[in-house]
Amino acid sequence: MKNTRGFASDNNAGVHPLIMDAINKVNTGHTIGYGDDKYTGSAIKKFREIFGDEARVFFVFIGTAANVLGLTAATRSWNSVICAETSHIHEDECGAPEKYSGCKLLPLHTTDGKISVNGIHSQMYGIGFEHHSQPKIVSLTQSTELGTVYTVDEIKKIADYAHKNNMLVHMDGARIANAAVHLGLEFKEFTIDAGVDILSFGGTKNGMMYGEAVIFSQPDLAENFKYIRKQGMQLASKMRFIAAQFEAYLTNRLWYENAKHANNMAKLLAMEVEKISGVTIMQKVESNGVFARVPKEVIPELQQEYFFYIWDEETSVVRWMTSYDTTKEDIFGFTSLLRELLK
Amino acid sequence: MKNTRGFASDNNAGVHPLIMDAINKVNTGHTIGYGDDKYTGSAIKKFREIFGDEARVFFVFIGTAANVLGLTAATRSWNSVICAETSHIHEDECGAPEKYSGCKLLPLHTTDGKISVNGIHSQMYGIGFEHHSQPKIVSLTQSTELGTVYTVDEIKKIADYAHKNNMLVHMDGARIANAAVHLGLEFKEFTIDAGVDILSFGGTKNGMMYGEAVIFSQPDLAENFKYIRKQGMQLASKMRFIAAQFEAYLTNRLWYENAKHANNMAKLLAMEVEKISGVTIMQKVESNGVFARVPKEVIPELQQEYFFYIWDEETSVVRWMTSYDTTKEDIFGFTSLLRELLK
Amino acid sequence: MKNTRGFASDNNAGVHPLIMDAINKVNTGHTIGYGDDKYTGSAIKKFREIFGDEARVFFVFIGTAANVLGLTAATRSWNSVICAETSHIHEDECGAPEKYSGCKLLPLHTTDGKISVNGIHSQMYGIGFEHHSQPKIVSLTQSTELGTVYTVDEIKKIADYAHKNNMLVHMDGARIANAAVHLGLEFKEFTIDAGVDILSFGGTKNGMMYGEAVIFSQPDLAENFKYIRKQGMQLASKMRFIAAQFEAYLTNRLWYENAKHANNMAKLLAMEVEKISGVTIMQKVESNGVFARVPKEVIPELQQEYFFYIWDEETSVVRWMTSYDTTKEDIFGFTSLLRELLK
Amino acid sequence: MKNTRGFASDNNAGVHPLIMDAINKVNTGHTIGYGDDKYTGSAIKKFREIFGDEARVFFVFIGTAANVLGLTAATRSWNSVICAETSHIHEDECGAPEKYSGCKLLPLHTTDGKISVNGIHSQMYGIGFEHHSQPKIVSLTQSTELGTVYTVDEIKKIADYAHKNNMLVHMDGARIANAAVHLGLEFKEFTIDAGVDILSFGGTKNGMMYGEAVIFSQPDLAENFKYIRKQGMQLASKMRFIAAQFEAYLTNRLWYENAKHANNMAKLLAMEVEKISGVTIMQKVESNGVFARVPKEVIPELQQEYFFYIWDEETSVVRWMTSYDTTKEDIFGFTSLLRELLK
Repeated sequence: MKNTRGFASDNNAGVHPLIMDAINKVNTGHTIGYGDDKYTGSAIKKFREIFGDEARVFFVFIGTAANVLGLTAATRSWNSVICAETSHIHEDECGAPEKYSGCKLLPLHTTDGKISVNGIHSQMYGIGFEHHSQPKIVSLTQSTELGTVYTVDEIKKIADYAHKNNMLVHMDGARIANAAVHLGLEFKEFTIDAGVDILSFGGTKNGMMYGEAVIFSQPDLAENFKYIRKQGMQLASKMRFIAAQFEAYLTNRLWYENAKHANNMAKLLAMEVEKISGVTIMQKVESNGVFARVPKEVIPELQQEYFFYIWDEETSVVRWMTSYDTTKEDIFGFTSLLRELLK
Repeated sequence: MKNTRGFASDNNAGVHPLIMDAINKVNTGHTIGYGDDKYTGSAIKKFREIFGDEARVFFVFIGTAANVLGLTAATRSWNSVICAETSHIHEDECGAPEKYSGCKLLPLHTTDGKISVNGIHSQMYGIGFEHHSQPKIVSLTQSTELGTVYTVDEIKKIADYAHKNNMLVHMDGARIANAAVHLGLEFKEFTIDAGVDILSFGGTKNGMMYGEAVIFSQPDLAENFKYIRKQGMQLASKMRFIAAQFEAYLTNRLWYENAKHANNMAKLLAMEVEKISGVTIMQKVESNGVFARVPKEVIPELQQEYFFYIWDEETSVVRWMTSYDTTKEDIFGFTSLLRELLK
Repeated sequence: MKNTRGFASDNNAGVHPLIMDAINKVNTGHTIGYGDDKYTGSAIKKFREIFGDEARVFFVFIGTAANVLGLTAATRSWNSVICAETSHIHEDECGAPEKYSGCKLLPLHTTDGKISVNGIHSQMYGIGFEHHSQPKIVSLTQSTELGTVYTVDEIKKIADYAHKNNMLVHMDGARIANAAVHLGLEFKEFTIDAGVDILSFGGTKNGMMYGEAVIFSQPDLAENFKYIRKQGMQLASKMRFIAAQFEAYLTNRLWYENAKHANNMAKLLAMEVEKISGVTIMQKVESNGVFARVPKEVIPELQQEYFFYIWDEETSVVRWMTSYDTTKEDIFGFTSLLRELLK
Repeated sequence: MKNTRGFASDNNAGVHPLIMDAINKVNTGHTIGYGDDKYTGSAIKKFREIFGDEARVFFVFIGTAANVLGLTAATRSWNSVICAETSHIHEDECGAPEKYSGCKLLPLHTTDGKISVNGIHSQMYGIGFEHHSQPKIVSLTQSTELGTVYTVDEIKKIADYAHKNNMLVHMDGARIANAAVHLGLEFKEFTIDAGVDILSFGGTKNGMMYGEAVIFSQPDLAENFKYIRKQGMQLASKMRFIAAQFEAYLTNRLWYENAKHANNMAKLLAMEVEKISGVTIMQKVESNGVFARVPKEVIPELQQEYFFYIWDEETSVVRWMTSYDTTKEDIFGFTSLLRELLK
């Protein structure tokens, strides 16, 4: 039987046992649907302990929806959203942001997955000119799609610039836990405190089954979000099962333990790979992804044993993602195969 | 502590133990994401055993999404969708069908939740006339939002009319299992065999945690649906957990046992209620809902103990839904309280 | 050569000579585009003399656009728009309001083209309930698609109800001049003064070549409309040619003379038709349309000579529209042919 | 009184006298609306004499609409459109393409307004992968927004590549006449014959009052366009007045004379400007636009006398457009003022 373990994506892992326990535990009796239940109330309370009393928290099914509906909440169709060309909203959502919000996306060139004030500034023209889509959101991914992590200072600079220009900051935090571990900071310190207005808070890539949270820094931004979520086809009837997952995820810093493990495994993988001649690490390994240039000819056989995705066909760069359940055996088995194939 | 059991909705019940078992069981090791896994393959196979080899099956998160994306697959924005004024797509989806598909909904007046060829025919004008939205879909709900069930003959007549007029038939089957039990028929007999082209196949209201299926009667209709699902924010990364639920749901006819129980509880409730003077059953009880006219003054106190929704404030009609886990104690406790309050 | 004169639509007439003169007159030299020119400034000033200094005025190409973009300005996609089932926005815009605004239309049954507070009230439920599209606009057509005219009192009652329920009032004034003539009132008296917030002010059906105005009762409502108009594909580059038309239209009450004539011709037509046995006038003749039941068998031959549209195939009701250039000869020729055919 | 003549845009010119004559001439009697009239029939016939019998022709009001609705006709919302970063659809339509079609735009970097097969190829990945917007259209502007003109060979190479990759070619021909003059070719030779599938054929920038044509190379592409145009708020009721303009525009090659004059004036302007030290022509002058780098300090005074737009604030590049009615006096007056200011 084929080995299914690999480095394709952190969402190829299953559900963390503590989260599965929590799901099982709330499966008792009747509970009012659509989020008016005590489990959802409790999970939201936990989020507000982290993000502050002003924060408003809504659960949706997936990260794409968290991004798209979060952007929709703060825009009208004549706005534009400035983002990295590598961002999930630009590259991996099949055009959902444009279709749903009607906005234009302005992808900035990036080599490390990050964008800067300079890049954003290059799009700041035509303000007030009706022929031009009006920039309204700067969207950052934390940690980025290339495994790098914005520093607090980088985020603050961007947020300051955005706010001075009447824009808001959205953060795609599908892998926010990995960033928090890398930065050694609490979530709030590099999100709301740094100027993030709308946050997609992910859990599925770090041990949950399904469910993401859209977090607004203050109530005004969330004013109509209940309608946006429902019309956006993201209001769960049996909400308690998302709530229970987040409750467990935020209890005893499970999110931290999971992400720390994944990050460490990525570091180990990078360290081992660096010893192999012919392979080059292409990005800083700051979260749970390793991007490496690997000779084309060994890729297919390697993928056979440990599935992963090619990031860029032309340059032969591949992406390896680790997860909360990646083992040292996975790493060593993989790197020894790689070493073998490269002989 | 407040009693949370009640008759508010069949989605207030939890997850059936056999489905929860199935979820726990597939939580092992790594699995490729987004539906390219063996669990999803197996669940789809089970669906095609039921609906035929030509059928195409896609999992989404919720019923609203199944409806909206199913309609989107078969329409362009200049089309219209003919439906009952009581239909979920018209009444309970916050305008998601219009927003997402761009189509016009044409709600037909109904007293029992059903629509007829006559009603549909009344909207068949302006064909080919560019000023007029072009009718393209007839959408039926089975069982209806009023607890009634279309006969096979009724569906066939509507489907024949629709097809003769170059339209397709969509069925919102959020409670399709309850209809199947009432009709004593297999799913295919009153859907694809009767002319249904696109089916929203529900599970959440009958014992699942989340997950619905969009089923197309033949491959052509599903041609672009993978893009529609992804752009529609409904592609689950950890798909195996939806697949496992449907696998269990379709195994040993669990769906049937659950729905039969719910239907029987509704019949029992109706029978008991009929004995109480001052209360009138308003609709045929053919699935798991009971609609009754109840004196206004007793409603608040009754809701305190057993929560349920008022269907029509003006006429004082309420809706009581039973579920796979409703007990006789629930029924008798409720009806004895009702009797008491009406004294 | 076939007679092209008839009663098909008031837009089958050409452009009034004074308006054509105005178009010719502004065709001199260079003028800044997109509305920043003196001609547009002057025409807008004329509108504000009529509708007040608070009014905000924007020109678009056609009535459908005026309606759709006006509705878009005041709604979000989770809103609904309450209107008559006969309204242009529901019947004759190919679903443009739904496609563009994302909103749900709620068509009310009507026998005379008007809606009432009672009808509107029947849709006022589920407020604040996220499953339900939130009513935001009541849309009236003045004069209606059935040739009738709302009284000031009727409009005020509806507007009061709407405003008390946090809704706005939109008026489709494609034939507003005909209504003004019938009411013997200035435009403002039965629009802004009566509570209308957003007005589609038509000219094309009353002697203009193209061009309609969207008028907001106060600046707040128009805040983003310049973006909405541009993104809505309705910003004319050579705006002076729309401005010149409105300038002429509003000068010396040309609009009044044109509409009075059309209304009078409709009255004459109705009077003559009433003398013919076998034909029944179906609606009050309050503007420039006559709706009549005519024996089916004479319709085709009648249409050959004077084209017009059948309004309702089943009941054999037809629509005859008069225009600013309808002549008594047109009327008498038509009615004598009708009399002949019915012998 | 301020001089209003200038080089701001070719749409600041008025209507050519022959076109104005044509408008006046068709203003006689009644004519059926919405394009079912003899004038529209005749104008379409003229277009088909130029573009072939297979071509399908539809009139709309403006170029933005021609582009957006043309793209909508050939796409579904999960598609992407590849274009130059300077293109009108990306830069100057306030996001209308995204809002209306739902598609993603992929802007390619360009220095001369053109795109190449290499650039297009860089976006050709993720085909068949549902996470990725599927490329469906390559959109070219001819002549480009930078005044350059694609050769037939350049167009053919792009079209071949596009067709081999299951894409279609759209051409934004707002200034197509200027390109035809430059190329010395008939329209068809560098559009349909070169592989263009959908053409926005402009007239307003070359002497018309309003009105553009959407031309499809063959009937299949136009199948539903009548609904798209109506729902897209672009169906003119008094269509004869657009038709008459195109009739005149295409008669005796008026389009050619107008564009030739504008092109010649641009060449003259460039020639005169080149003599002035301190000013640099930045782009080949192949149509009716001149792009020049001008010292920042003289721009405001120059704009006072002859209005024009700054193209790029940072590099101090300005755009000067000539039109069919630009005179040598305009050119010489302007260049002598420029020379003066630069002393």
